[in-house]
Amino acid sequence: MKIIVDAFGGDNSPLAVLQGAAQAVEEYGVEIVLCGDEEKIKQVCAQNNISLQNMEIANANGFIDVHEEPTEILKSRSDCSMAVGLKLLAEGKGDAFVTAGSTGAVVVGASMYVKRIKGVKRAALAPIMPCKGGNFMLMDSGANLECRPEMLLQFGLMASIFMEKVMNVKSPRVGLANVGAEDTKGTQTLIDAYHLLQKAPVNFIGNVEGRDVPLGMCDVCVAEGMVGNMILKVTEGVAMFFMSELKSVFTTNAKTKLSYLLLKSNMKGLKKKMDYTEVGGAPLMGVQKPVIKAHGSSDAKAIKNAIRQAKTFAERHVIASIEQALSEMKEQTQPQNA
Amino acid sequence: MKIIVDAFGGDNSPLAVLQGAAQAVEEYGVEIVLCGDEEKIKQVCAQNNISLQNMEIANANGFIDVHEEPTEILKSRSDCSMAVGLKLLAEGKGDAFVTAGSTGAVVVGASMYVKRIKGVKRAALAPIMPCKGGNFMLMDSGANLECRPEMLLQFGLMASIFMEKVMNVKSPRVGLANVGAEDTKGTQTLIDAYHLLQKAPVNFIGNVEGRDVPLGMCDVCVAEGMVGNMILKVTEGVAMFFMSELKSVFTTNAKTKLSYLLLKSNMKGLKKKMDYTEVGGAPLMGVQKPVIKAHGSSDAKAIKNAIRQAKTFAERHVIASIEQALSEMKEQTQPQNA
Repeated sequence: MKIIVDAFGGDNSPLAVLQGAAQAVEEYGVEIVLCGDEEKIKQVCAQNNISLQNMEIANANGFIDVHEEPTEILKSRSDCSMAVGLKLLAEGKGDAFVTAGSTGAVVVGASMYVKRIKGVKRAALAPIMPCKGGNFMLMDSGANLECRPEMLLQFGLMASIFMEKVMNVKSPRVGLANVGAEDTKGTQTLIDAYHLLQKAPVNFIGNVEGRDVPLGMCDVCVAEGMVGNMILKVTEGVAMFFMSELKSVFTTNAKTKLSYLLLKSNMKGLKKKMDYTEVGGAPLMGVQKPVIKAHGSSDAKAIKNAIRQAKTFAERHVIASIEQALSEMKEQTQPQNA
Repeated sequence: MKIIVDAFGGDNSPLAVLQGAAQAVEEYGVEIVLCGDEEKIKQVCAQNNISLQNMEIANANGFIDVHEEPTEILKSRSDCSMAVGLKLLAEGKGDAFVTAGSTGAVVVGASMYVKRIKGVKRAALAPIMPCKGGNFMLMDSGANLECRPEMLLQFGLMASIFMEKVMNVKSPRVGLANVGAEDTKGTQTLIDAYHLLQKAPVNFIGNVEGRDVPLGMCDVCVAEGMVGNMILKVTEGVAMFFMSELKSVFTTNAKTKLSYLLLKSNMKGLKKKMDYTEVGGAPLMGVQKPVIKAHGSSDAKAIKNAIRQAKTFAERHVIASIEQALSEMKEQTQPQNA
């Protein structure tokens, strides 16, 4: 299994990426292709005592910045570390690709270099988020602000296959993010998507309200990008707000400080549970090869986890299953010839 | 000051409503008009030792259930407790109206019985929610799923006036809920709304992302109903998820249980901060008289707080200020005659 890694993506690159890649080689026995400035990679590895065993380097010129226009990855930045990695992936020089770089660029770049799966309307980043009792996959999380019903249907199907194959969730419960449970709720797009999902080969549990999602009512939350982005970021914001309030409770006085000492190890468990980097990155669903977008602020551990996730994504043949499901669904909805 | 109260709205009505109303009479010196089955009200008050001093009763037949179609309040249910209350308000028989009943029915009923302010495109429920460092008003929270830019402009203006006049926030920071900070982000509706808000007589701070809102970046969060509903309910869900995780941390073992005992009073403060019922209910903005929708699960304290909020809403002349601001804005945007 060979994973292509963008060595210059993310706030803590290249150091955290190189450390995470080296840890992944050791723990998961993968081979790595590092994309980026060869000289710089070798220099940082030497300075930080990072082994390059089972890693090769694909030289690239610079990297695409988060503030750049994502489409630049196809124009002036077509030799940056992310573009080089995506091209290697498209050419079959590796089994999966991991980057912590620009979200916009990886969505645009993967759609153009790696191409979408035949029949898939839109690719979308689908982060796996913590909720009561486990995790759920959120698809879409922001790339496709407004969607057509068929796009939402495909999101549900693709995410369901990922959760079953990679996250080992049996018959994942697929919910449609909406303002109420009844099938008459929401915009016409959501009403139509509801009826499409009802007939789809997924375990569709109907509409889910914003409150149900963190409470663990579904394993897959299908959402238009605008709504999904709010679910993702409000969750992040509320968790941060809560943690800061908790911190001020703990630091109130000597008594609360003492109680924090008693709780410390347990609180770490809670923090870990709330920490999406534990799960790995966000798969980019809908393209022909496995692509994982790690969080921009990823540390070495987060990169390592994203590489593990990319490995599972590739070895469980998720994309082949999606292709098969799409073609079966197409056959069923097409009129039969006598 | 006379507040009209729907005695049969909410999960805990009529008892909690009657208790809350009696407390409000005592604490805030208001007069109350209770709407609902007169016999039943007298009976519950007698059984529970609730004084009816400074309270009168407007008899009504039954109440509108949360599961009923909201428009029924105008048809078969036009003599229910909520409809009677709204009609009394429209007739000037009281200064403000409070209900913990059906959200849909109060939006429909108030728009039809009390009528919208002249020039206001849509009425919307605007809950006041906790965030880091204080509270913010969310408008819209779900009534108007898809909005036109002018509607979002009016939401920002109305909510800003409420926050300034009732919540004593000086020059409230108005943010537009969107997927990114730049003025090019989001749908065309949001881009157009951005430019309208920029020119409006409010302290517009630009787009706010989902993460910024709980972290207290704005005092008014302007949102289309679909997005606002997600902000409201995801916040609620994440807070519940977090509280349940925290509870399991505290109950892990003897050491964590001891630490909870040390923290108990401080944790209560945190819980109180997260509790929207402390602030009161959600004002219905855009209609000609003050209407407050208390949460369906309101207890006596929440009803009392909603009545206090309704009193301030009425006595600070919020609606007159909105009317004035709207007419000034209209004058400025209309071409001048030579």
